[in-house]
Amino acid sequence: MKIIDGGVCAAQGFVAGGVHCGIRKNRTKKDLALIYSECVASAATVYTTNLVKGAPLTVTKKHIENGKAQAVICNSGNANTCNADGIEIAEKMSELIANELRISADDIVVASTGVIGQPLNIAPIASGIPALVASLSKDGCDAAAEGIMTTDTVKKEIAVEFEIGGKICRIGGIAKGSGMIHPNMATMLVFITTDAAISSEMLKRALSTDISSTFNMVSVDGDTSTNDMVTVLANGMAGNTEIVAEGEDFDTFMKALNTVTVHLCRMIAGDGEGATKLLECKVNGAKTEQIAKTVAKSVICSSLLKAAMFGADANWGRVLCAIGYSGADVDVNKVDVSFKSIKGEIAVCKNGAGIDFSEEIAKEILLEREIEILVGLNDGNGSAVAWGCDLTYDYVKINGDYRT
Amino acid sequence: MKIIDGGVCAAQGFVAGGVHCGIRKNRTKKDLALIYSECVASAATVYTTNLVKGAPLTVTKKHIENGKAQAVICNSGNANTCNADGIEIAEKMSELIANELRISADDIVVASTGVIGQPLNIAPIASGIPALVASLSKDGCDAAAEGIMTTDTVKKEIAVEFEIGGKICRIGGIAKGSGMIHPNMATMLVFITTDAAISSEMLKRALSTDISSTFNMVSVDGDTSTNDMVTVLANGMAGNTEIVAEGEDFDTFMKALNTVTVHLCRMIAGDGEGATKLLECKVNGAKTEQIAKTVAKSVICSSLLKAAMFGADANWGRVLCAIGYSGADVDVNKVDVSFKSIKGEIAVCKNGAGIDFSEEIAKEILLEREIEILVGLNDGNGSAVAWGCDLTYDYVKINGDYRT
Repeated sequence: MKIIDGGVCAAQGFVAGGVHCGIRKNRTKKDLALIYSECVASAATVYTTNLVKGAPLTVTKKHIENGKAQAVICNSGNANTCNADGIEIAEKMSELIANELRISADDIVVASTGVIGQPLNIAPIASGIPALVASLSKDGCDAAAEGIMTTDTVKKEIAVEFEIGGKICRIGGIAKGSGMIHPNMATMLVFITTDAAISSEMLKRALSTDISSTFNMVSVDGDTSTNDMVTVLANGMAGNTEIVAEGEDFDTFMKALNTVTVHLCRMIAGDGEGATKLLECKVNGAKTEQIAKTVAKSVICSSLLKAAMFGADANWGRVLCAIGYSGADVDVNKVDVSFKSIKGEIAVCKNGAGIDFSEEIAKEILLEREIEILVGLNDGNGSAVAWGCDLTYDYVKINGDYRT
Repeated sequence: MKIIDGGVCAAQGFVAGGVHCGIRKNRTKKDLALIYSECVASAATVYTTNLVKGAPLTVTKKHIENGKAQAVICNSGNANTCNADGIEIAEKMSELIANELRISADDIVVASTGVIGQPLNIAPIASGIPALVASLSKDGCDAAAEGIMTTDTVKKEIAVEFEIGGKICRIGGIAKGSGMIHPNMATMLVFITTDAAISSEMLKRALSTDISSTFNMVSVDGDTSTNDMVTVLANGMAGNTEIVAEGEDFDTFMKALNTVTVHLCRMIAGDGEGATKLLECKVNGAKTEQIAKTVAKSVICSSLLKAAMFGADANWGRVLCAIGYSGADVDVNKVDVSFKSIKGEIAVCKNGAGIDFSEEIAKEILLEREIEILVGLNDGNGSAVAWGCDLTYDYVKINGDYRT
């Protein structure tokens, strides 16, 4: 398996594009994105568990009930959530783009992201759609990735190439997500395309298995969005024998999918609103994998630890505190904690109590951009990883006045 | 019932004091506090549910197993938590103060607050104890309240006077708590004294009933401390017939206790680390009281909403979002939301969707120091209140470099 360029356009038969249509006032920021497959593809989507759901999610769910889709349209600048006419608008978006692409509206995945509770005007979308379709190209991944960004500071894309039964396959994805990120079933918006041939059923199984240890282990601020969604389209154009059951080919596909999703998780967490650091909490030695997950997520979500990491302060007591209130079955007297970055690794807690360590070396390690928080529970073989970011002045700034 | 001066010294037979003994480097900041009753009192305490527990909690639990105590000693500057010799030090603190007061070490409630995982040196405490006992006075509540403060910016105390069976009784309390506040069974440190005569058993029942709708409904940052603790001492010196069962007298006592605890909750939330605003989320119309509590707490804990309140931004979509992911059984299409302060009240969401409102008036309301977030679920008669604060630059500043 190797990493390649092209993002969602890396797989055969996929093109993408993006334009500014006028939902956002800033004319230099694209606000409408499109991904298109030459042929109808197997499709799988997971959605937020928030009871308040964006209207586009309801419409998408209906459209891909048959496990098939051919295009993804997504706007930024407005979440189309908590609006009386939300469903109607999301259906209208689907119809307009389907007509322009001359495909069925039932094969459209529709998504929206941005502010909640402000009516989404269909006019700029309607007038922008011809230009959006005209923008479709094999080089269009960047434009699509930009079109779905909100407070993101970097575009998030990746693609990998791998082999199934002698056939070269590709899988690539784009993501947006910076605030309101604490997925439960899915994360912000992630669109993944692949030319591997795989049945809808197996694609669904692959996605739902994968997200439990990837997107569901990311948290920026503990707020589970109303519009979280991960979609995978598989158009089969790589020509491999279709994957219809578990086995070697499925495992290969899962591994490639996981490479893409972990990369996007790290990008989402590292670009969390206001973040200066990517935090990765790796828990080992738990009684069960579930305990490891609970502990890792609790640590990554602690506001106090996040603020300490911003200040490069080796305040490991906050790691212990977060483990203690996680609700997981842990023997706190066996817990070891270390901090690690490219500058090295330093042990700070052994058997639940502090040990002597050099504050200077710890500071040097914690001043880096990517920090690992290593937790050993010494209680079994379960392990897990969770991704988060530091809590900074800029998070407060961005969210203190998001709408104006 | 009327509010009176005196805090923990308002009740007959109670004196208090505080000194700087040297745990903290800053010599102008008191770091040791003492509350003393002339006679042995009924005692009830609730503790943190964090698996990582401060050593003083373990020692206190043992001491008040018999439902009796006579004095409370508490240091700030060091939590005496995650230290190998923690229990030994907490026992030593108890013995030293018991000897100086000439009472039994078993009648001492011991508490500590401050940084986790740094050994607590007994020497400054031992040398400070004579001065601490000498400082005891009827006017000593301020000194004690100051002695338990960490990042708190204001002293938190209150007392009320009420009548049971023709006898005047008093109940008063002090609290500290500013960060790592998201109690589950108790909150940071709260010490309450009363001269009402009440059995240990009924005192325990009163306290555990009360905290479920008071301290357990406060959150500053979602981090449940390792040292949370609420203690009530009742020395019976008011001379009322001892309360040994439920009934009118018990109800009167509960009402007085609740006045003290709600006041302290509001003070703790309003003085949350870096806070500029007290947030009070009042939920009505829930199917059950538990649903109302879950919703109120989820709203008050949302980092996004907290940041929006800091910016006086009427971003009600974040209230809906937090209700949606709370896990509570709610019909999101029936939810109404208003914001309220002394400047007035403004409705912003009706039946789960936005309504037209004046952003200028909303801003004026939200610029105040105390904000009510009113949530109507229109689904039953359950109601609840939760207290929190805004998320500010100063929270990040305080916690980015707490130890240095």
